[in-house]
Amino acid sequence: MEDQIKQQVDLFRNRLIEGLDESLNHSGVNSRRVAERLTALAEIGMTEEGGCRRISFSQEEKQAKNLVKQWMEEDGLNVHIDGSGNVFGRVEGEIDGPAVVSGSHLDSVMHGGHFDGPLGVLSALEVASAWKGAGVKPTVPYEVVVFTDEEGARFNGGLLGSQSVVGELDMEEEVKRVDFNGRPFTDVLADVGLTPDGFRKSKRDLNDVKAFIEVHIEQGKQLEKRNLPVGVVTGIAGPTWLSVTFSGVAGHAGNTPMNDRTDALVAASEFMLNVKDFPGQVSDSGVATVGKLSVDPNGVNVIPGEVTLSVDIRDIKLEWKEELSKRIKEYAQQVSDAHGTTVSIQESMNVAPVEVPADMQSQAGEAMREVLGEAPFYLPSGAGHDAMILGRYVPMGMLFTQSLDGVSHNPAEWSSLSDCVQTIHVLKRFVEKVMED
Amino acid sequence: MEDQIKQQVDLFRNRLIEGLDESLNHSGVNSRRVAERLTALAEIGMTEEGGCRRISFSQEEKQAKNLVKQWMEEDGLNVHIDGSGNVFGRVEGEIDGPAVVSGSHLDSVMHGGHFDGPLGVLSALEVASAWKGAGVKPTVPYEVVVFTDEEGARFNGGLLGSQSVVGELDMEEEVKRVDFNGRPFTDVLADVGLTPDGFRKSKRDLNDVKAFIEVHIEQGKQLEKRNLPVGVVTGIAGPTWLSVTFSGVAGHAGNTPMNDRTDALVAASEFMLNVKDFPGQVSDSGVATVGKLSVDPNGVNVIPGEVTLSVDIRDIKLEWKEELSKRIKEYAQQVSDAHGTTVSIQESMNVAPVEVPADMQSQAGEAMREVLGEAPFYLPSGAGHDAMILGRYVPMGMLFTQSLDGVSHNPAEWSSLSDCVQTIHVLKRFVEKVMED
Repeated sequence: MEDQIKQQVDLFRNRLIEGLDESLNHSGVNSRRVAERLTALAEIGMTEEGGCRRISFSQEEKQAKNLVKQWMEEDGLNVHIDGSGNVFGRVEGEIDGPAVVSGSHLDSVMHGGHFDGPLGVLSALEVASAWKGAGVKPTVPYEVVVFTDEEGARFNGGLLGSQSVVGELDMEEEVKRVDFNGRPFTDVLADVGLTPDGFRKSKRDLNDVKAFIEVHIEQGKQLEKRNLPVGVVTGIAGPTWLSVTFSGVAGHAGNTPMNDRTDALVAASEFMLNVKDFPGQVSDSGVATVGKLSVDPNGVNVIPGEVTLSVDIRDIKLEWKEELSKRIKEYAQQVSDAHGTTVSIQESMNVAPVEVPADMQSQAGEAMREVLGEAPFYLPSGAGHDAMILGRYVPMGMLFTQSLDGVSHNPAEWSSLSDCVQTIHVLKRFVEKVMED
Repeated sequence: MEDQIKQQVDLFRNRLIEGLDESLNHSGVNSRRVAERLTALAEIGMTEEGGCRRISFSQEEKQAKNLVKQWMEEDGLNVHIDGSGNVFGRVEGEIDGPAVVSGSHLDSVMHGGHFDGPLGVLSALEVASAWKGAGVKPTVPYEVVVFTDEEGARFNGGLLGSQSVVGELDMEEEVKRVDFNGRPFTDVLADVGLTPDGFRKSKRDLNDVKAFIEVHIEQGKQLEKRNLPVGVVTGIAGPTWLSVTFSGVAGHAGNTPMNDRTDALVAASEFMLNVKDFPGQVSDSGVATVGKLSVDPNGVNVIPGEVTLSVDIRDIKLEWKEELSKRIKEYAQQVSDAHGTTVSIQESMNVAPVEVPADMQSQAGEAMREVLGEAPFYLPSGAGHDAMILGRYVPMGMLFTQSLDGVSHNPAEWSSLSDCVQTIHVLKRFVEKVMED
């Protein structure tokens, strides 16, 4: 078992190093260092199947943070760990003032991969390491951050570290949580030396932050299809989740004539078939997905009496998302009326989307053009990130790195070293532009 | 608990007797006797919720058979129990020759009602009792039958008693079965004094049978809608079960643009929406139902990669059912092609339907007209019955009795005493016509 994990670590390193391109080693950025650091993090929580299990508030998450803290110190950053366990490494700038902050998280989902989180942390760190190697001092202060518990695999929540920094966390609610083993929030925190009170005291004065920038794997295939290493995020599309229940009349499949049925699944099918056409009526960035469905009673020879399905609705502008959600709800009612069923709709989640400010998008785009000689490609983020939390309070930007087959939250998650390093070059240029702004 | 069951028995009796209509007591038929016998059977296996749990090969099924045997003997029938535990009660006719046989079963599903099975047995018996009361001897021999294990709740099969009589049972396969408690077939049979060898020896010379006639509750709402106590069955629509799997590409609901999806559930929805229109293209009696469906991975924020659904296809003519099945399979392929998914189709069941011969239908219809003064109403049976097995070998007829809300296989199953007794009058006339034929 030990051997199997060592073997997986070797496989991971070798696969990364295969993509090493010495021509990318310039401006202080070091491809090999990036590969070694990705591998060193991958080793912590490596599973026998080659995936990552580095759950929030585990010893593994803590160990990974400590390793990054050590690298920060080696590269001359001043490290501060707040009461939520968020790790900040700071480089002073030529002038004092609000800092540009970049980073991500090191915790994973239950059966995750090695890029979601670590790539954002190491990209931010590599920018500081590159400056140090090139003898450059940034214009304004720069901070690399590791946020605690982005994924929420422990308490089914997530984004705890970034929420505590902006002061959004409702600790009176959080302390009621129990983890997947049934252990209370406070006990789990104590395992890694944290306390609810520490979280409460982590709110930061955000006047100290000039901008927040996060690098993340795309978790989609748009960059891969366009053969681009990196893309510029236009906004983060917070989801609205609807639970829609169509109720008809169950009956024996053999003894109920076709013209005497009120089949909940037939009504639901008409709805599911056509939901896909609504996003395009509202914007170019919206999506709507029926992902989960249950049929009652779900017997081969029984006409479905009730169907409950989920609709996941996302767009990067709040008004677009609300318009899309409204149209989909109205359509559910219209379909139900036409089929003689009844329908009930519950909204189980509604997270406000966050747009990336136009000037942050254009600076990222210019950085991409300057570094890669490529026309910038803009795309929305369908998933939430720490940048979504920070973006509600400070100018926020995001870069996406090409992700193999768009796979994430899975051991098969992969980004080539070349794409990672090209992203780092774009990030570095982007950060420098924001600092100069 | 004892008290609760006694109370349920009283409730059952009182509810039946409420519907007692003395004007139906003629030609030897006795409403009160029918009510008392239905109640006496209901008592055996009565549940606290007022339902019936009289599983095949249980002491309850055996006890119910013994009670019917006792009534048969009281009414002067000669009783014979074959090696499958099927109980036959015979009245000799004015002339010898093939017998008209009528009956049904006494076993129930796990949580059943008190009419599915018993009504068919007691209707057949009441015809013999009525003749005896009226001092009438039938033209030809008449037999009342109780078939063993129609429902199949024990071994997930069913129709064992009737199959053994026609010699269709593959005992080499049956003996491999284990029941819901994991007990082998032979052991379970031994509990009620039966053996596999007894089953093997139950095949009967069907030249001795002039016709088989079964009374059963409708298990649908067609008679209730037309306010008819009884209807004439045109055929028994054996089911074809298809398992259809649409395979697309799973992906993150937020990070996959609408125009870049191969959503298995969207393809399945188009199929499910339109399947309902196919039966009417082929016949007036066909039905097609998607009753069961599973989505993989079934996550709110994941585009469905695979959807597996069942299609239950029935019609009373084999060529109609095959044509319907063929069209539905072709349509699944056509929908899949249009959506860029792949589709695979397995046939998990294909039971041949059995038509009721035209002369049996018309004799039943005439009986209904003569007894009730009503135009006969003809309807297919969507569910299988012992009559389906017998109907492959001998002329077969069926009468359906109105069933409240079409509910069956459920404690709420109900038919009024008046509808039951009117059915018995029609059955008696029907049997007499077949005998005279």
